[in-house]
Amino acid sequence: MYLPKHQNSSKVAMRDQIMDKSFIFICLLLLTIIPVTLQEVQKKPIKKHEPCKRIVLYYHDIIFRGNDPVNATSYAATNASGIGSFDFGKVVVFDDPMTRDQHLTSPPVARAQGMYFYNVKYAPNAWFAYSVVFNSSEYEGTLNIVGDDIITEKTRDLSVVGGTGDFFMTRGIVTFETENVEGTKYFRLKMDIKLYECY
Amino acid sequence: MYLPKHQNSSKVAMRDQIMDKSFIFICLLLLTIIPVTLQEVQKKPIKKHEPCKRIVLYYHDIIFRGNDPVNATSYAATNASGIGSFDFGKVVVFDDPMTRDQHLTSPPVARAQGMYFYNVKYAPNAWFAYSVVFNSSEYEGTLNIVGDDIITEKTRDLSVVGGTGDFFMTRGIVTFETENVEGTKYFRLKMDIKLYECY
Amino acid sequence: MYLPKHQNSSKVAMRDQIMDKSFIFICLLLLTIIPVTLQEVQKKPIKKHEPCKRIVLYYHDIIFRGNDPVNATSYAATNASGIGSFDFGKVVVFDDPMTRDQHLTSPPVARAQGMYFYNVKYAPNAWFAYSVVFNSSEYEGTLNIVGDDIITEKTRDLSVVGGTGDFFMTRGIVTFETENVEGTKYFRLKMDIKLYECY
Repeated sequence: MYLPKHQNSSKVAMRDQIMDKSFIFICLLLLTIIPVTLQEVQKKPIKKHEPCKRIVLYYHDIIFRGNDPVNATSYAATNASGIGSFDFGKVVVFDDPMTRDQHLTSPPVARAQGMYFYNVKYAPNAWFAYSVVFNSSEYEGTLNIVGDDIITEKTRDLSVVGGTGDFFMTRGIVTFETENVEGTKYFRLKMDIKLYECY
Repeated sequence: MYLPKHQNSSKVAMRDQIMDKSFIFICLLLLTIIPVTLQEVQKKPIKKHEPCKRIVLYYHDIIFRGNDPVNATSYAATNASGIGSFDFGKVVVFDDPMTRDQHLTSPPVARAQGMYFYNVKYAPNAWFAYSVVFNSSEYEGTLNIVGDDIITEKTRDLSVVGGTGDFFMTRGIVTFETENVEGTKYFRLKMDIKLYECY
Repeated sequence: MYLPKHQNSSKVAMRDQIMDKSFIFICLLLLTIIPVTLQEVQKKPIKKHEPCKRIVLYYHDIIFRGNDPVNATSYAATNASGIGSFDFGKVVVFDDPMTRDQHLTSPPVARAQGMYFYNVKYAPNAWFAYSVVFNSSEYEGTLNIVGDDIITEKTRDLSVVGGTGDFFMTRGIVTFETENVEGTKYFRLKMDIKLYECY
């Protein structure tokens, strides 16, 4: 009688061990799955302060004034309306150099190509639609951007609505900050490009 | 002999209980994981009829007609082509009030800033690119919108392609519905903003 | 004594079986959950070469030249600047037929409605913002597209930034390729529309 019982007991002990191992194994599996799953659930509310890519560039706009076709990088496709005092109604197309630092004469690392138009009568305000075109050893591809440049605010956010090449399908935010305005001839914007959806 | 066996039996019973508890515990864990995981899998085909945020606003456009610079909220930056009879070729920039109800004189809760242009010769049709700019106790931020306003259809959908501030990185659909047209001076659109990607 | 032990032994064996089944059940569950979860984690880096939907269309642009109002499908809303030799500053609005094959006279399956403007002084370059409007037995809905048409490159990518109807909330890439240019009167682009986010 003892032997069987012993056998039984030993079998139970072994099964205990197996069960313990299985249980540990399952727990470990669950522990690896749970954070992944939670991470997935929390992925959508991506962290506002942690872009997956960030590029700071300076945008230089040299407005054509009738006598500088070589240097000018933007051109008013329509005249201002004459209403208000902030070029309300003027549509400008541009092909502007973008540099890594604030100097107009630094070698451009990208070009900003698109348009803006002044759309508020009694305040400086421009609506932008353009591409940042990279073509360098660092990046190839474009970022497509639209949004409102509420010039009266120190910083303003526009949307990166898509990208191509190295920026395939990206989305994000560009923060504009006016850095320099020289009359109606030149202005420089700091463009802080923060991508939150990268591929 | 009885005691050990009894012990054994009791031990087995206890282990049964532990195992039962473990099994229940694992099942409960699985039950919490499975729906989360399934929810994740089903997240992408988001429910068309259940936006994560919905805002209905009324857009009032008062077109500048040469003699009303104070009241006008939009301005034709280019003339119509003269081809067809639907202002084909006219580009309009605007800074229009948006209200919660249909009344032009209600306090605006946002402004629509951007452009539209008439791009079809033989039918009323406008292409829009603009931002809804919120700056109130309720919301701070912008929604960026582009799309085709096929005026001949009762309702038409445009795309919310990005957002900033309280609308950080959102996407969605805006449904336009023409509510009132007063000749060439004023029109009102109901804009039913439905966001399906919220953060 | 034997019976109880036998009972016990049999009970243990049965429990073993139950445990085995439970364990297999749990493992199967885990096996179904793990790939789903991993798939979710890997979803974001979507495969660049495997769009969820792909549509190739041909875009025909017949530019109004002052004497062809019936056939023209696009119209220069502003004149070129006269700077450079690539229509720098010209803004064009269009309502162009899109066909399945390369023939202008084939029945259009969609229309491209929007604008482009020439924004580079010393190279052919156009910035596009438009909708592809489907209204056929095959598709109902629109795709909204913005981006830079760097004409000097054989192929160039623009962004599908949103969609409506059958293309609800989609995103993707459109690859442009110039196929035919007949002076300043007509050009045809192949538009290879690849959607990577489908719903």
